[in-house]
Amino acid sequence: MSLLKELDERDVANTGEELHRFATDLYPICRSITGDGIRRTLALIGSRVPLQTVEVSTGTPVFDWTVPKEWNIRDAYIADSGGKRLVDFQQCNLHVMNYSAPVHATMPLSDLRPHLFTIPKHPDWIPYRTSYYKEDWGFCLSHNQMLALDNGDYEVCIDSTLQDGYLTYGECCLAGRSSDEVLISCHSCHPSLANDNLSGLTVATLLAQLLSERDLRYSYRFLFIPGTIGAITWLARNREAVGRIRHGLVLTCIGDTGGFHYKKSRRGDAEIDRAAAHILIHCSKSPQILEFSPYGYDERQYCSPGFNLPVGCLMRSVWGSFPEYHTSADNLEFIRPVQLAESLRMCAAILDVLEDNRRYCNLSPYCEPELGRRNLYRSTGGNEIGMETHARLWVLNLSDGEHSLLDIAERSGVPFSAISEAAKLLCQNGLLSIVPDDSTGGTTPSQAWHEGTLQRS
Amino acid sequence: MSLLKELDERDVANTGEELHRFATDLYPICRSITGDGIRRTLALIGSRVPLQTVEVSTGTPVFDWTVPKEWNIRDAYIADSGGKRLVDFQQCNLHVMNYSAPVHATMPLSDLRPHLFTIPKHPDWIPYRTSYYKEDWGFCLSHNQMLALDNGDYEVCIDSTLQDGYLTYGECCLAGRSSDEVLISCHSCHPSLANDNLSGLTVATLLAQLLSERDLRYSYRFLFIPGTIGAITWLARNREAVGRIRHGLVLTCIGDTGGFHYKKSRRGDAEIDRAAAHILIHCSKSPQILEFSPYGYDERQYCSPGFNLPVGCLMRSVWGSFPEYHTSADNLEFIRPVQLAESLRMCAAILDVLEDNRRYCNLSPYCEPELGRRNLYRSTGGNEIGMETHARLWVLNLSDGEHSLLDIAERSGVPFSAISEAAKLLCQNGLLSIVPDDSTGGTTPSQAWHEGTLQRS
Amino acid sequence: MSLLKELDERDVANTGEELHRFATDLYPICRSITGDGIRRTLALIGSRVPLQTVEVSTGTPVFDWTVPKEWNIRDAYIADSGGKRLVDFQQCNLHVMNYSAPVHATMPLSDLRPHLFTIPKHPDWIPYRTSYYKEDWGFCLSHNQMLALDNGDYEVCIDSTLQDGYLTYGECCLAGRSSDEVLISCHSCHPSLANDNLSGLTVATLLAQLLSERDLRYSYRFLFIPGTIGAITWLARNREAVGRIRHGLVLTCIGDTGGFHYKKSRRGDAEIDRAAAHILIHCSKSPQILEFSPYGYDERQYCSPGFNLPVGCLMRSVWGSFPEYHTSADNLEFIRPVQLAESLRMCAAILDVLEDNRRYCNLSPYCEPELGRRNLYRSTGGNEIGMETHARLWVLNLSDGEHSLLDIAERSGVPFSAISEAAKLLCQNGLLSIVPDDSTGGTTPSQAWHEGTLQRS
Repeated sequence: MSLLKELDERDVANTGEELHRFATDLYPICRSITGDGIRRTLALIGSRVPLQTVEVSTGTPVFDWTVPKEWNIRDAYIADSGGKRLVDFQQCNLHVMNYSAPVHATMPLSDLRPHLFTIPKHPDWIPYRTSYYKEDWGFCLSHNQMLALDNGDYEVCIDSTLQDGYLTYGECCLAGRSSDEVLISCHSCHPSLANDNLSGLTVATLLAQLLSERDLRYSYRFLFIPGTIGAITWLARNREAVGRIRHGLVLTCIGDTGGFHYKKSRRGDAEIDRAAAHILIHCSKSPQILEFSPYGYDERQYCSPGFNLPVGCLMRSVWGSFPEYHTSADNLEFIRPVQLAESLRMCAAILDVLEDNRRYCNLSPYCEPELGRRNLYRSTGGNEIGMETHARLWVLNLSDGEHSLLDIAERSGVPFSAISEAAKLLCQNGLLSIVPDDSTGGTTPSQAWHEGTLQRS
Repeated sequence: MSLLKELDERDVANTGEELHRFATDLYPICRSITGDGIRRTLALIGSRVPLQTVEVSTGTPVFDWTVPKEWNIRDAYIADSGGKRLVDFQQCNLHVMNYSAPVHATMPLSDLRPHLFTIPKHPDWIPYRTSYYKEDWGFCLSHNQMLALDNGDYEVCIDSTLQDGYLTYGECCLAGRSSDEVLISCHSCHPSLANDNLSGLTVATLLAQLLSERDLRYSYRFLFIPGTIGAITWLARNREAVGRIRHGLVLTCIGDTGGFHYKKSRRGDAEIDRAAAHILIHCSKSPQILEFSPYGYDERQYCSPGFNLPVGCLMRSVWGSFPEYHTSADNLEFIRPVQLAESLRMCAAILDVLEDNRRYCNLSPYCEPELGRRNLYRSTGGNEIGMETHARLWVLNLSDGEHSLLDIAERSGVPFSAISEAAKLLCQNGLLSIVPDDSTGGTTPSQAWHEGTLQRS
Repeated sequence: MSLLKELDERDVANTGEELHRFATDLYPICRSITGDGIRRTLALIGSRVPLQTVEVSTGTPVFDWTVPKEWNIRDAYIADSGGKRLVDFQQCNLHVMNYSAPVHATMPLSDLRPHLFTIPKHPDWIPYRTSYYKEDWGFCLSHNQMLALDNGDYEVCIDSTLQDGYLTYGECCLAGRSSDEVLISCHSCHPSLANDNLSGLTVATLLAQLLSERDLRYSYRFLFIPGTIGAITWLARNREAVGRIRHGLVLTCIGDTGGFHYKKSRRGDAEIDRAAAHILIHCSKSPQILEFSPYGYDERQYCSPGFNLPVGCLMRSVWGSFPEYHTSADNLEFIRPVQLAESLRMCAAILDVLEDNRRYCNLSPYCEPELGRRNLYRSTGGNEIGMETHARLWVLNLSDGEHSLLDIAERSGVPFSAISEAAKLLCQNGLLSIVPDDSTGGTTPSQAWHEGTLQRS
């Protein structure tokens, strides 16, 4: 049974609620690219799927970069002269510029102001800002909060530590029949932001749960990593593993109500690119297939020229394109159970294509075989045939060892699921055989057929 | 002279009438996939063109299929208790489900009804139904006829035989200078249906007549065969001949008033695909070029993966897409002399492309030759040049031994006929030579030109 | 500094005026395909750029053609019986059919009329006519002038000579670091016609002036030649030089107010075709990219199949498409300083692409290098990045030794100039190295990266 069918036999509403509940558990944690926030996040993921947590020391060189210091934070606030907290990290962890160095001082507003970030256009929202690679500190607050500040002195406190420690990431590996791998990667470094990227973390976790109970063609590797530096660190530590990655997906911003977007890998025509495009076009409303660009999330690293991995990025609304992006409005109301569940379904359907996409060989390639005799055709001449029969005819016609099922689905316009069903049925009826995965080189069936029979006179 | 020109020098109206008269002669015959109906049809075709009739015994294995029993019918009717024929095969041979097993019984309407076929949407039309591969019997009648039947008993008689015998098909072979062949195939198994496929049979017959009087580059093979099983039988018996087929056309539904449709071969870019598309686009109104699909007429068999022959299908209205399809309304009024003649013209123009499509070599490839000196250019500078001159410039420019005339026609947008005329004229003027058909491998003219003159310093 | 920037640092209005003044100097000269008109034209060009003038004797065979006689003219007129000049070469050199044989006779209007050419649709304009390859004589006049002629006798005088002499052309060669050449060709055979082709002559001359002061990657060859026979003569005499031509442009009709048109070379995807299309699309309003056709200006000869050089044609309004074409209305008002200067800019931008289009190799190909550390990235996370940063990311991502900067510009949609700037900056920062021009064959960087690290397990 396909992964999608298995999923659809569950209660979709329940699946959506489960995803949203998991996001709700993860939401309050103050994550960053290093530190305890990400450790607590991985612990919650690890309670659901087998997860290996990896700690890499500060200062470790990773390609052109260096693993940064570990950041932890206990408290932060701006208080007025009466000690009243006007901006309070305990209420919302976005209030602190992520990765802020510690500070404790009293200063007039004029000194404080360069450290304050707001969004004048959305005066009630708190922005999300980071300063990973330049030591600095700052507060993010709503524009209305800032307007209410008078010219007095303020107590400013960020009770954080920025010191040698570790960069932490999680890895969930599921063994399949082949050592060839599918990579699913999502960044886990953002604090209380829901679509970016609790949506990706929760969907990936449930996907791993589902796959862990199945007999798999491919091995799967799920990465829960801090953005950019996490992907770079993983790649630097796993150069030998990279060669096994056959397909990959970065998951982000997949909980909102926007239509699906798939950004292609650098290769542009990788199997994952074609599988994702096929599924989005057949199974979702007004999807958009985007060309690769070197700006984005961690596909940037996987698709750097030295690796050039076939890794694309699945989104609903594209990061950066919606006003709630990187603000406090990207909250638990912004992501919905229905959309989370539908995103999980879309991932499942894409993985179904990867798992089932093979080449077959028609065992009766000269003319059509007599399908009617095998009850694979309608019996009274004169009526139209249905999609199942069309799918069978297409699979027979193009199964020459050169066309994969995805090739056939693309050329015929018939959904991959129907093509795949037809191939199984035709195999059962002795009309088709699987071409082994490693059959490269040598004579193709199509060449053999023609050499045997069609020599020119 | 091109075949199209030869045809156009005749009286087109006369040609149309001749085609329609021939269809009228063939119309009353009750054809099926086997039996005397097809024999009588072939006899009439054989009175016009040299035709070899082939008989293949029932039970002969042909790939995955078996040659079926021979079916013949003398009479069939449904009569009321007073002996009055209410449904009468003698009035229209569509009234019997084609290939019906014999039956003679009296039965109440309730028993008869599962054996009756009508078209409620077109209550005056009789449908066409077959049951070739499941032994059964039935009557086809107008919906109004069925509504008039009361609940009494009916005498039901189908005086048919279904027994060992032969499958019969006709083959007309015309030898050309090359043993490479063009295949024209049309199904001849349908009873009184005009567009499907007396249109194909009659146009193919006249095409064969025309070609038989000409000096031909290719050899031609016309097949008049029962649909599906006939094509399979021919392919099974002629596996060695298949390798000689360079181009092929299935002709069906080419007598109605619809615009032309050409369905490409499985290859999609075969010379026949390009030739047919070029001619339809240049010579007919609102033509449609359709992608290959494995569902259709006998191109299904020719394009099965073990053969993958370059065979497309020429139609006006696409079978199955017009309401008269497979009903008594597909009659002699549904096909028109004008359209039949125009379809013959279109076939002739396509064959002209195949016959004349060669590669040439410019004998004066460095700069343009001086056409004015040879009266091949206008003499006073400053005026525009006409299509003939454009055609000459294009042929000279692209005749590097790599581009065929069809390549040149496609790239230039100039009709193939003008390109072909230009090539002949330039040959006569010593500016062009033919590249022999079998010149493959070795140095192309274009390579030789550049090696000789353009070595890098 | 790019050629375009150098040009833009000058006063564009001044450049336009300079071009127009030069055209004004050249305008009165009565040029033809041979003779003193072209010699005087080359002398004026030669006063600005180093120019070699070549004289080829009448009767010299040049491929399929022969160098024609030299034509010179002192005077020509039609006078009435009272000796009054009604049509006077001294007033406009278009009045004589170019290359007219000498004549001096008195004749009635009826005998004269077959030798008169007018444009009834534009009754005040004088047409431009030639008769190079058929010895003849004629007068061109406004339609109104002709209507005013009564039936009396006329003195007809063309004081021309048509005798053995020379065909003259000019060649300006600028040596670059490579012996590979860029060819700029413009025809210099038209008399008082401004857009066709004083526009091409003047822009080419200033372009040569600009280039002569620069350090050049390519060598440049500017040809100032009579149309058709001049190009044929040059090609016949320079077969060994042809192999050095890597890119070429024919310049004509680039002074009017029409939008830019670029007609591709016969190859269709040559670097010059892509460079010109890129620049026109990014830097001009509503440009048109035209497919190659073998009819046109001297690209016909360069793109003849024996040469097949990568030479396209840059125009504003396409020759033959505007009513003023080949009439006295193609005068000094028809070309404008602003448009001439803009055409020079466009040529400069195209040459900048050719000069700077190289392949580079990313020296930090595994993941992105840390641009922030090098001040090549914005420092605060959460804001958008600008086009400069996008250009850097694209150059890094695609610099695998296989993509040229033009490939990168095309794929990214970022202007070539920004891509080229990014490449220079990344080289300065040690992140990129140039792939030598002659590095063909062997292992590409991209192959080396993958062999070293990505062996399959």
